[in-house]
Amino acid sequence: MKAVLVEENTHRLYIGEAEDPVMGDDELLVSIKATALNRADLLQKRGLYPPPKGASHIMGLEMAGIVENVGKNVTGFKPGDRVCALLPGGGYAEKVSIPAGMAIRIPDHFSFTEAAAIPEVFLTAYLNLFWLGGLKAGHTVLIHAGASGVGTAAIQLVREAGATSIITAGSEKKRQACLDLGASLAIDYKAGPFEPAVKEATDGQGVNIILDFIGAPYWEQNLSCLAMDGRLVIIGTMGGSKAPELNLGQLLRRRLQIIGTALRSRSVEDKIALTREFVEFAMPRFADGRLRPIVDSVWDLEQVQEAHEYMENNKNTGKIILQIQK
Amino acid sequence: MKAVLVEENTHRLYIGEAEDPVMGDDELLVSIKATALNRADLLQKRGLYPPPKGASHIMGLEMAGIVENVGKNVTGFKPGDRVCALLPGGGYAEKVSIPAGMAIRIPDHFSFTEAAAIPEVFLTAYLNLFWLGGLKAGHTVLIHAGASGVGTAAIQLVREAGATSIITAGSEKKRQACLDLGASLAIDYKAGPFEPAVKEATDGQGVNIILDFIGAPYWEQNLSCLAMDGRLVIIGTMGGSKAPELNLGQLLRRRLQIIGTALRSRSVEDKIALTREFVEFAMPRFADGRLRPIVDSVWDLEQVQEAHEYMENNKNTGKIILQIQK
Repeated sequence: MKAVLVEENTHRLYIGEAEDPVMGDDELLVSIKATALNRADLLQKRGLYPPPKGASHIMGLEMAGIVENVGKNVTGFKPGDRVCALLPGGGYAEKVSIPAGMAIRIPDHFSFTEAAAIPEVFLTAYLNLFWLGGLKAGHTVLIHAGASGVGTAAIQLVREAGATSIITAGSEKKRQACLDLGASLAIDYKAGPFEPAVKEATDGQGVNIILDFIGAPYWEQNLSCLAMDGRLVIIGTMGGSKAPELNLGQLLRRRLQIIGTALRSRSVEDKIALTREFVEFAMPRFADGRLRPIVDSVWDLEQVQEAHEYMENNKNTGKIILQIQK
Repeated sequence: MKAVLVEENTHRLYIGEAEDPVMGDDELLVSIKATALNRADLLQKRGLYPPPKGASHIMGLEMAGIVENVGKNVTGFKPGDRVCALLPGGGYAEKVSIPAGMAIRIPDHFSFTEAAAIPEVFLTAYLNLFWLGGLKAGHTVLIHAGASGVGTAAIQLVREAGATSIITAGSEKKRQACLDLGASLAIDYKAGPFEPAVKEATDGQGVNIILDFIGAPYWEQNLSCLAMDGRLVIIGTMGGSKAPELNLGQLLRRRLQIIGTALRSRSVEDKIALTREFVEFAMPRFADGRLRPIVDSVWDLEQVQEAHEYMENNKNTGKIILQIQK
């Protein structure tokens, strides 16, 4: 099959040949129509984010496509079904095999390019907001990088949970997009510290949950922005990973939680459980338009290198989609 | 009523007079038979751990006694009932009023001095193991200060949950007591770092949960001892609260959680919910002997100053009980 491969020295992407995946008895073989880019791909091609054990060495953490074949233990799916799914790797290719439990049926009115924008960002946002953040109605959530894929998914999930979101973003266009999705306040992080605006918006109380991708540079402001029982969920450390001295006394007094999270390295059982819970919460909402995948742009497979450069320049609001087969 | 008071300058304890508590409509007025010492008392008498808003300024975070009167909204309790309960303060006195939802019926075969040894340590251990630590059968838990009140309660709860505990303690006698309660390994923290022994005992995997009272001096070893998805629950910072630099990258890679916790400052609703859940889990086990309160020693009210000095010298294994009325 065709797949996107990486030049060893330059890390440039090219289209080459890879072996077809082997389907297990509990799996579906899917013909991929579209995949989407993730920041993890940018690390993976440089050898900085190796795939988990047993996973494909091809990039691509999600896909949408058509079931081509079903394993002998699988019930409920048949060839021709339209599905999307989270992947531990292998999305930048024509075919992939997935555990049937990971498959999400694509609503009829969604194209494959829209469906490919759902799994990674919405499951990441769901995991970190509900499973780790303990999101409840009435909560206030600070979402850094609000216009990112995970950010735009999180804003919508927070709204659907009856909670409020405050976001940070670096451009007027991005901030407006976040407000349109339901954020109550959009902070320009380039204009200065975000902490005063968060404190003011919460009457000095702080927020219940923070989704952070930045790490060390935001560490002290983040901790200061947490309300009693607040949880700082660290999804990425794009700005650096060495956090300065921590005052454990404030952790106890304010009963704070600091939570490191990663979706890709979780067990298949975990991912299936997460997918099933997410499907129940989200798919009725996708069906009637309360939730929607945020597609920034759609690129042809041959443009994969340009699409990566576009992401590297932080130009997107929502997902960057790669069409594998038209 | 008689109550233990604190000399302002010397922080020495003496017995004086205090106003009787006022009982609310949802409360019980309890005649206290016994209370128990907690490390928080040592801080409180020095002005370092002020009582939460609205709480009694008298020390004492738990008690056992006899219901003297019941508020007009209360059902299920009557004068003469034997109860014990967690308190936000006020246990070092002859009387206290408590929300009826906080009352735990004392099993018939328990004396008041035994019952007074239950609330604070068992509810603290339950909160931190189950609610915050996510304790499950098959887990391994590292319990620092294993022979402390919370430690001896935690060892028993871990055993009853079908999980395994490793403890640290500074004397042979304390370590033996912990092993007798069900700990699988007792480490002498005075003999060197505990980390190698924890790693060896877990085949290099680390533990799922750590209950820590020490703070900064154990910070790096604790983080290193955590397994994938491990949770460090920080209950105290007896050794210092300034934790050195934290590598956020390892937090993400190993999906670690750092959780600051305090029971006293929680809302009454939270404490009632915790008490009810604990009663369901624990009281059948106290009734048939699978769980037992660990009483180190019983002191007369007049000996309260000596009892505090005994705790300050770390001499106890289990709870130090103060008899208020015989």
